[in-house]
Amino acid sequence: MKTLITLATALLMTLPASAADAHRIEPPNWWVGMRDTSLQLMIHGAGIADAKPQLAPYPGVTLKASHRATSTNYLFVDLEVSPRARPGELAISIGGTTLRYPLLARAPGSAERQGFGPEDAIYLVVPDRFSQGAQLGQAGMKEGMNRADPSGRHGGDLAGMTQHLDYIADLGFTQVWPTPLVENNSDKYSYHGYAATDFYKIDPRFGTNADFGAFVTQARARGVGIIQDVVLNHIGSGHWWMKDLPAPDWVNEWPQYTETHHARMTLQDPYAAPSDRRRFTDGWFVPTMPDLNQRRPELATYLMQMTLWWIERYGLSGIRTDTYSYSDRDFLTRWSARVMQEYPNLNVVGEEWSPHPAVVAYWQRGKKNHDGYVSHTPSLMDFPMQANLLAALLENDGPHTGLTKLYEGLAHDFVYPDPAQLVLFDGNHDTPRLFSLLQRDVGLTKIALAYIATTRRIPQVFYGSELLMQSPTERDDGRVRADMPGGWVGDTTSAFTGEGLTPAQRDMQDWTRRLFNWRKGERVIHDGALMQYAPLDGVYVFFRYDAKRTVMVVLNKTDKAVTLPLARFSERIAPGQRARDVLGTTTQTLGSSLSVPARSPLILTLER
Amino acid sequence: MKTLITLATALLMTLPASAADAHRIEPPNWWVGMRDTSLQLMIHGAGIADAKPQLAPYPGVTLKASHRATSTNYLFVDLEVSPRARPGELAISIGGTTLRYPLLARAPGSAERQGFGPEDAIYLVVPDRFSQGAQLGQAGMKEGMNRADPSGRHGGDLAGMTQHLDYIADLGFTQVWPTPLVENNSDKYSYHGYAATDFYKIDPRFGTNADFGAFVTQARARGVGIIQDVVLNHIGSGHWWMKDLPAPDWVNEWPQYTETHHARMTLQDPYAAPSDRRRFTDGWFVPTMPDLNQRRPELATYLMQMTLWWIERYGLSGIRTDTYSYSDRDFLTRWSARVMQEYPNLNVVGEEWSPHPAVVAYWQRGKKNHDGYVSHTPSLMDFPMQANLLAALLENDGPHTGLTKLYEGLAHDFVYPDPAQLVLFDGNHDTPRLFSLLQRDVGLTKIALAYIATTRRIPQVFYGSELLMQSPTERDDGRVRADMPGGWVGDTTSAFTGEGLTPAQRDMQDWTRRLFNWRKGERVIHDGALMQYAPLDGVYVFFRYDAKRTVMVVLNKTDKAVTLPLARFSERIAPGQRARDVLGTTTQTLGSSLSVPARSPLILTLER
Repeated sequence: MKTLITLATALLMTLPASAADAHRIEPPNWWVGMRDTSLQLMIHGAGIADAKPQLAPYPGVTLKASHRATSTNYLFVDLEVSPRARPGELAISIGGTTLRYPLLARAPGSAERQGFGPEDAIYLVVPDRFSQGAQLGQAGMKEGMNRADPSGRHGGDLAGMTQHLDYIADLGFTQVWPTPLVENNSDKYSYHGYAATDFYKIDPRFGTNADFGAFVTQARARGVGIIQDVVLNHIGSGHWWMKDLPAPDWVNEWPQYTETHHARMTLQDPYAAPSDRRRFTDGWFVPTMPDLNQRRPELATYLMQMTLWWIERYGLSGIRTDTYSYSDRDFLTRWSARVMQEYPNLNVVGEEWSPHPAVVAYWQRGKKNHDGYVSHTPSLMDFPMQANLLAALLENDGPHTGLTKLYEGLAHDFVYPDPAQLVLFDGNHDTPRLFSLLQRDVGLTKIALAYIATTRRIPQVFYGSELLMQSPTERDDGRVRADMPGGWVGDTTSAFTGEGLTPAQRDMQDWTRRLFNWRKGERVIHDGALMQYAPLDGVYVFFRYDAKRTVMVVLNKTDKAVTLPLARFSERIAPGQRARDVLGTTTQTLGSSLSVPARSPLILTLER
Repeated sequence: MKTLITLATALLMTLPASAADAHRIEPPNWWVGMRDTSLQLMIHGAGIADAKPQLAPYPGVTLKASHRATSTNYLFVDLEVSPRARPGELAISIGGTTLRYPLLARAPGSAERQGFGPEDAIYLVVPDRFSQGAQLGQAGMKEGMNRADPSGRHGGDLAGMTQHLDYIADLGFTQVWPTPLVENNSDKYSYHGYAATDFYKIDPRFGTNADFGAFVTQARARGVGIIQDVVLNHIGSGHWWMKDLPAPDWVNEWPQYTETHHARMTLQDPYAAPSDRRRFTDGWFVPTMPDLNQRRPELATYLMQMTLWWIERYGLSGIRTDTYSYSDRDFLTRWSARVMQEYPNLNVVGEEWSPHPAVVAYWQRGKKNHDGYVSHTPSLMDFPMQANLLAALLENDGPHTGLTKLYEGLAHDFVYPDPAQLVLFDGNHDTPRLFSLLQRDVGLTKIALAYIATTRRIPQVFYGSELLMQSPTERDDGRVRADMPGGWVGDTTSAFTGEGLTPAQRDMQDWTRRLFNWRKGERVIHDGALMQYAPLDGVYVFFRYDAKRTVMVVLNKTDKAVTLPLARFSERIAPGQRARDVLGTTTQTLGSSLSVPARSPLILTLER
């Protein structure tokens, strides 16, 4: 994180109740000085749909219009908050009630904040499974704790994450992406957070909104940014809207329950049947996740404002967008435009789970698409490269298999407008654990992490990879998202103290710490050029370089130590150069060949 | 073939010797009325390099310049053949010798000839392995016949191909692509034709240049065009140049023998090491195939003129370019521009053996490339889709496996400037036989051929596929290119008479005949729109359609007959429509569902 934003935290803690008890207003507050001066309030209250709201005179703020949807209980109020408006409180009267609405001052530098980027390394945490710092229990929600159930709530919380920020920062990570923290008040299977029941409220089992603010502030104090995981595509069936939808078409309706068939290429395919395209976008994920219809203008505005609200209110450094392409495509254009308009240097990473670079590239800002589609989203998750990385280490090498997939995968960077902005990950909450996929081979696991840390990408590591955490190799979400050892009172092993870890775990943890701390200071990794050589005999070599410095990366996936002839790499290195092994302790003078240990990555820094 | 060109065949047969005995001139003749008026003659003769050639006055033709290369025995003469020049014979005196050089009239419509396209179906033949029509024997060449050796010469020839043109035309094919026919006078392994020893001469073991002319003429009389297989990348080590290279750098030189590493993406990869790029392009295929350096201007001109010569002289309908991307990239731009300048409606199909659409698309005319690279080649072999087709039929269906690969592969058409011009093949001389790869499953084999014949591509079938010919499933060239049954006197089975074929072979042959004869008349397949539906439960459905007509293609790869609900396809069909099974005999009225036999393609034509 390059720019740390000081928020008026005290103000956040003491924010007044946003409206009279009987009414709910969302967003719960807004700010003066936003680039887009429009603001649409959604007010929910019994029978208010046809009320004529009045705004008490407030310099710089005007009430432009109001309208209802289908339900008698929602009123949408359009305000204009001009640049000359000052912070304060609006008074909006509806019938006999006066609602107070806070307009806050933006934090200094808020609009210009620098989002996460190639200089960062991201640590992905599933909050329910990371650490329990408080004993919040059921907290009035439907589902209580059951740590014995892989699909149950285990009680991890914001306090736990906050307590272990030192651990994360010490590992060398500069960004944390927690899976969603907003309220998911479902009967069961609520821990994952992707079925929001309230878009503006931290789930009480994780803590309060104030706890989240403290978490972000504490992280920033350690140079760590927080990336919010936002779900635009669907909500939970327990969302408060579902008892009284503003209009029936706020969720995508079907004559009978229809699930998406995940045929994501219907959006690029020149031959796609329109009905297939509709089923992909409007079909539901599961029966318990109503699929939002972002073509509804008020809902689109709601989702855009909700995103901005979290960024502005808590000083976030980025957004991760779940199930990206499943939302309405035109809405995504407007949503990404709005976010980037307010925060031109922010980063937003979309999840487009496709193995095809041409499909992922379609969604990246700057791509000139065949159909004229425009996106403003700067980053996508690099699923194609993650698949290539696994194949590289698991398959035998051939003309288009094994290491060649990694090599040709990177060569495909020409299809992206900005490949350095892609997030490459070792795994996430939806994939089996890296170490298990790599057949519990520590050497291959280190190669994978070394690649992620040194190639031309933003690296992201799943919590516990540093401990060689395992899972079934077929999808099994509850076990992939296992509890971080040491996160709970009474744990006999602990990632945080080292207690009970095996020597292999300690070694991996230490190695990961050295890798990402080294990366933090290497600008040539952040924005240097890259040159790669076709893999040969199970060894893949590439370089990062700039005018001053060269980093040589050698990935030897064979089970034999290799003496690598160096003449082939004469474009980038020369005999006599001093080379330091950044993950070891040795420095050597380059000769005509290089010793590379079996089944290992070797990262050397060379001075010009 | 839409335009049949009548060549002055008699003239070709009686062409005078091209030069005095001691000299060789290439090209051996030229034409008046070519769009590019320049012509460079390569004259080879003892000690002529520094001669000052004189052109006897000839209206419309001027001698612009001449120069030597390194060898003392080559003279390059630049002529200008203006539009006003008439056919006749040039007289060029060099020292005391006068060389006669024919300038011919072009055949009417030659420049405007229509090349092969989506309305065609191509039959690929390996001439040595198709049929022996004459007993030409060793014909003075180094390697004789040995039919017992899979890698030896088996004696197939132009006479045999000519005799069986009726068979090919009757199968419904409208184009024949024979692998190269030019002289390959090597000690051994000469039958495949990809190691030219004379670019202008048909190998005597196949016949004479006149035999080739007769073959093309006979084919055209049956509505069949001939596609010439041209190798620009390399020659055979027995090529006459190799005894006396015009200049040492006509072949790519290395301090020690260096083979290409086939890292074709070095040409697109923004990160490729320059040395890797050079090794790909300039490395040799095998020690017996000197790699041509097309950066040498006279060689580039030679190859361009050589290509035009075959097209013009024999009335070809297209070019297939071997090992396309291995030649110098900038030369390929100029070569393809020159060919398409002379024949704007011709087709040229390049072989780029990559599974990646973005790589294949890079070489297609009209692609806007990231690096500004420009190609004029209209067609490429669709290796990505061929791999997808095999995977579709061999793999279990998953989110990105099995039939989904075919579906997503076609969806990738958005990366191509003109996907309908790609040639999709069931296999070729370098791949194992389709029927063997599909585990000798006739149903799957029919599905593959039905797909090739009905999707938005130019279909190409390898000789013998119609007989379920087999091969090892690992690469084994000699056995993949097995002899066509009935092509040799004494064969006990015959594709041509049906003698000795198994019932399964007869059925497949008959089925193939019906498929491609039906295709020939279906304009909606040639240039209609396409709409596809995501595969479901092992069944993949797509439509070709235009304003008048719809073709429904159902591929059922499961081993069960399926009752396919039709409501899903309401964009393209409606209950009550009459549907004719084009490969069967039945006509039915569409209801709410359709019966599809197990492991079969079903192709229905529907009237609007």
